[in-house]
Amino acid sequence: MKKLNTSPISGMQELLPEKQLVFDEIKRKIEEVYRKHGFLRIETPTIDRSEILFAKAGGDTEKQIYKVIKTNETAEDADQALRFDHTVPLARYIAEHESDLSFPFRVAQAGKNFRGERAQKGRFREFYQLDIDILGRESLPVAYDAEIITTLYDALKTFLKPKMVIRLSNRKILSGLIASQNLQEKAKDVFSIIDHSEKVAPEKTQQSLNEINLIESQIDLINKFMAIKGQKSEVIEKLNALNIENEIFREGVDELSEVLGTLESENVEAIGDMLIVRGLDYYTGTVFETFLPDYLKLGSVCSGGRYENLTAHYSDQKFPGVGGSIGLTRLFSILDENGLLEKNLKSSVDVALVPISENEHGYALKLAKALREKGYATDVILTDKKLGQKLTHAAKIAKSGIVIGEEEVKSGNLKIKDFETGEEKPL
Amino acid sequence: MKKLNTSPISGMQELLPEKQLVFDEIKRKIEEVYRKHGFLRIETPTIDRSEILFAKAGGDTEKQIYKVIKTNETAEDADQALRFDHTVPLARYIAEHESDLSFPFRVAQAGKNFRGERAQKGRFREFYQLDIDILGRESLPVAYDAEIITTLYDALKTFLKPKMVIRLSNRKILSGLIASQNLQEKAKDVFSIIDHSEKVAPEKTQQSLNEINLIESQIDLINKFMAIKGQKSEVIEKLNALNIENEIFREGVDELSEVLGTLESENVEAIGDMLIVRGLDYYTGTVFETFLPDYLKLGSVCSGGRYENLTAHYSDQKFPGVGGSIGLTRLFSILDENGLLEKNLKSSVDVALVPISENEHGYALKLAKALREKGYATDVILTDKKLGQKLTHAAKIAKSGIVIGEEEVKSGNLKIKDFETGEEKPL
Repeated sequence: MKKLNTSPISGMQELLPEKQLVFDEIKRKIEEVYRKHGFLRIETPTIDRSEILFAKAGGDTEKQIYKVIKTNETAEDADQALRFDHTVPLARYIAEHESDLSFPFRVAQAGKNFRGERAQKGRFREFYQLDIDILGRESLPVAYDAEIITTLYDALKTFLKPKMVIRLSNRKILSGLIASQNLQEKAKDVFSIIDHSEKVAPEKTQQSLNEINLIESQIDLINKFMAIKGQKSEVIEKLNALNIENEIFREGVDELSEVLGTLESENVEAIGDMLIVRGLDYYTGTVFETFLPDYLKLGSVCSGGRYENLTAHYSDQKFPGVGGSIGLTRLFSILDENGLLEKNLKSSVDVALVPISENEHGYALKLAKALREKGYATDVILTDKKLGQKLTHAAKIAKSGIVIGEEEVKSGNLKIKDFETGEEKPL
Repeated sequence: MKKLNTSPISGMQELLPEKQLVFDEIKRKIEEVYRKHGFLRIETPTIDRSEILFAKAGGDTEKQIYKVIKTNETAEDADQALRFDHTVPLARYIAEHESDLSFPFRVAQAGKNFRGERAQKGRFREFYQLDIDILGRESLPVAYDAEIITTLYDALKTFLKPKMVIRLSNRKILSGLIASQNLQEKAKDVFSIIDHSEKVAPEKTQQSLNEINLIESQIDLINKFMAIKGQKSEVIEKLNALNIENEIFREGVDELSEVLGTLESENVEAIGDMLIVRGLDYYTGTVFETFLPDYLKLGSVCSGGRYENLTAHYSDQKFPGVGGSIGLTRLFSILDENGLLEKNLKSSVDVALVPISENEHGYALKLAKALREKGYATDVILTDKKLGQKLTHAAKIAKSGIVIGEEEVKSGNLKIKDFETGEEKPL
C-alpha cells in the first residue's frame, strides 16, 4: 500500500508531549489570571455563518477566511466559514444573548482561530488566541481600558522572563489633530503613514507625508506628534504643547492621561507612544501593543484597544467595549526559538511503577490507585519486556520510578528513584 | 442597515457563562483524572489533509466530513478538511513522531471534532471529545485494556451522579464463533444483526438471521451467544458452555476474562455483554460502552476498544492500541436536559468590589490586587451608575460583594456580603 505523507499541513503547530506540557502550563497561567481578574469564560462555535464573518472582515482578512463545505457541496454553497478571530463571534454572542448578560460584561475566550495565510515562519494558519474583553451597555468608562491592560500585563508576567513594555496611545488624539487641521479627507492616509513608520526608513515616511500634499506646518506638526513618547507626565505635557484646539483631541489626551495614571499606580510598565495606531482596525480610543525591548524584532506579543460599537451589524443597541488578545501559538513558537521557555517541565507523570513480572501487576495497580488518590500522576508499566527496557521507558516518561518485585510485594518496602538526580529513597 | 441573524448555526452548542463554567469544570475533572493516570496530552491540528481523513473515514462519516476552501478556491481544490475524530490524526501523529515517543505511549486528547450531520436533538456538528489511548510498538498487553476502562470510569465518576455500568465484550469471541461455523463470508451480516439487535424488535433480529440463510443450530448458537451477560464468572462459564473449538474464540474469552477480572478488583462496575459490538468499526478485541441504567434512553455515554493496527496507511510498523472517548458536548447537553448537572457553580467570580464613587476607585483597585494575590477572583465595578444598580450587577456576576465608600476608605473596615445567604461579615 502507498504510504501517506504524515507531516501536519504547513502553518500548523504540532508539539511533542514535553512541549505540549509547557504550552498547556502557559495557557493555564494566562487563563488563571483572567479568572482572577473577574473574567467569565465563554466559547463560541468555530464554524459560523459566512455573512457574519465576512461582514466584519474586509481587506486581507477576507481572502484568508476558510469556508467550509460538505462532501456534496460546491464553493457556492459555502454559507459557513471558520472564525478568524474571537471578536466577530463575540459581537454576535453579545447581540444574541444580551438579555441574559449583566453589563459591564468581563468575558474571556481561549480557543483556536483560523486564517489561510501564506505559510511563513512565525505565521500560523490555526492558532490559539486568548482574548479578554469588557463590554458595556450604551457606555463604558475609560477606567476599564486600564483594567484590560493590567490583566494582560499580569498574565504575561507569569511566564515571560524578558522585560516587557506596553506602548499606548489613543486614536482620538490623532483624529482630533487631523480634524484641527481640516485634514479629515486624508485621515486614512495619515493613520496609515504613522502606522507603517517603524517598518520603513524615515525618509520614506517624510516622502509619504509630502505625497499626500500636506503643507509644511502640518508636516511639522505630525513629525512633532510622532516623536512624542515616554512616561505620563512627559507625554501629556508634550501633547498639550502642540496647542491643538479640538474637543476630540482633548478627550483623547484626558483618556490617555487617565489610563497611563492608573497603569503607573498599578506598576504596569507602560509608556505613551504616538506611533501606536493599530492599523485601520475598528479601534476608536485607547490602543496598545506590547514589546520585549531585548527582542524587538519579535514584534508585538499582545495588543488591543477600545471599540465603540462592535455590534452595529447585529443590534440597534450600542455595546462599547475594550479588549486585548495574546496570540499564544505565535508567542510560544517565538519563545521556543529564542530559548525563553521554562525548561524544568519534564513530564506531567510524577511516578512510573515498574512491576518486574506479571505477578506484581495486581500490587502495582493497587499502589497506583493509592498514589493517584494522593494526587500523583502515576503510570504503571504492564509490558512483558525485560526490566532494563521497562526502566528506560520509565525514565523517559516520568519524573521518578518505583520497581516492584517479589521482595517488595512481600515486605512492602518500596524505594522511589528520582530520574533527574539518580537519588533513591524509601517511599 | 439590515441586521444579521445572530443565533449560532444549528447543531452548535453555545452556552451562557454560568453553564460554560459547569462545562469547564467537568472538562477539567476529566482531564485531571487522565493526567493522574499517566496520560500525556497532545494536540493535533483541526485541519488535516483530506487524503488522511478520507482514507479512514468510509460510510456515513465520509459524507459528514467538512472540507475547507479559501475564498478563491473551488470544491475541487479542497485537499484539506476538518478532523471528525481524534483517532485518525492520532494515527498520523504516531507515524510522524514515533522516533521521539516512548512506548507504550499513554496519550490524552481533548478538543473539538466536526461532523456535518443532519441537525437533530442531541447531535452536534462541532463537539468536544476527550480521548485517551495507549499505543504499543508491535505489541501491547491486554492489561492496558483494563487500564483504559478504569481511567474512563474514574473520570466519569467525578461528575456523573447516576449509577453507571460498563458493558464489555471482545470481538475475537464472535469472530471465533463465526469461524467455528464456517460463516466467515457472513461475518459482516452477523456483526451487524447483533449490533442492531437492541434497536429493533426481537422478531426482526430473528428474521434477519433467517434471511442470511443460517441453519437452525447456528441460529440457536447465536441466540444463546447473544443472551450471555453478567459478572465475570457467569459470562465465562456460559461462553465455555457453548463448546466452541476455535483458537480465536478461546483467545477472546481469555482476554475478556482478564479484563473483567482486573475491573472487578478495581471496583469498576462492569459486566460482560455479548450484545456489545461497536458497529463495523476498526476494533479487533475488547469493545465497551457505558450506560446509565436509570437513563437507558440516553444511549452510551463513553465507549471504545482495542485496535490492532491503526497506522497501516502511514507506516510499515505496527502500533496496536486501545482507547476510549467521552463525547462531552453531547453528554453535557444530556445531563443538562435531565437536570443532572451540578447546580452550585454560580460564578467563577468570588468577590465584586463596589466603589460608591470615583473617589474610591484607587482604593478598590488596590484591594482587588491584594485579593487576587490571595487567589480570589475579583471584579471591580467602575461604572458611574447608582449604587443600587451596581449592587444588582454585583449580585448577578459574583458570589459576594464589598461596598467601598468614603467611610470604608478612611477606616479600612470592610464588610463582605454573601449574595447567596445575604449574610454580611467583616472582611
